[in-house]
Amino acid sequence: MKYRAKIEVSLKPGHTDPEGNTTQRLLKELGYSVDAVNVSKTYNIQIEATTAKDAKAKAEEMAKRLLANPTKDNYTITIEEQK
Amino acid sequence: MKYRAKIEVSLKPGHTDPEGNTTQRLLKELGYSVDAVNVSKTYNIQIEATTAKDAKAKAEEMAKRLLANPTKDNYTITIEEQK
Repeated sequence: MKYRAKIEVSLKPGHTDPEGNTTQRLLKELGYSVDAVNVSKTYNIQIEATTAKDAKAKAEEMAKRLLANPTKDNYTITIEEQK
Repeated sequence: MKYRAKIEVSLKPGHTDPEGNTTQRLLKELGYSVDAVNVSKTYNIQIEATTAKDAKAKAEEMAKRLLANPTKDNYTITIEEQK
């Protein structure tokens, strides 16, 4: 079965997010009152797996081995069945 | 009230996603069979608004004015009440 894994990789709290800070400054300059802006990256991956649980385990492995840096990144995984 | 807007900006279909393609190649080299990889960017923004509807309208405006490029980007907005 085909599944769609969404792996959202974001910076752990305490790490500087220059892109988020710049975006916040620009939004303020446009007149919006925003308190905090964080930017994260989402990988949408189509994977072949037998069950949703299996798809989640694969996505978890991909995040650990390639997509997220354990020193500075957190990640969250959501799995959807592919239509 | 404080709300947390998640604005996910992704490439419109048909646009080349070099980062997605490279990630797909690397995942294949690591032995995973992945069919497609798309990378998108998510802005997590804390905004002050009176209602969730108002927060969504503001986030929509921010996406249009600054965060998404209408020629090549799609965006989706989700609003959560801030704990």
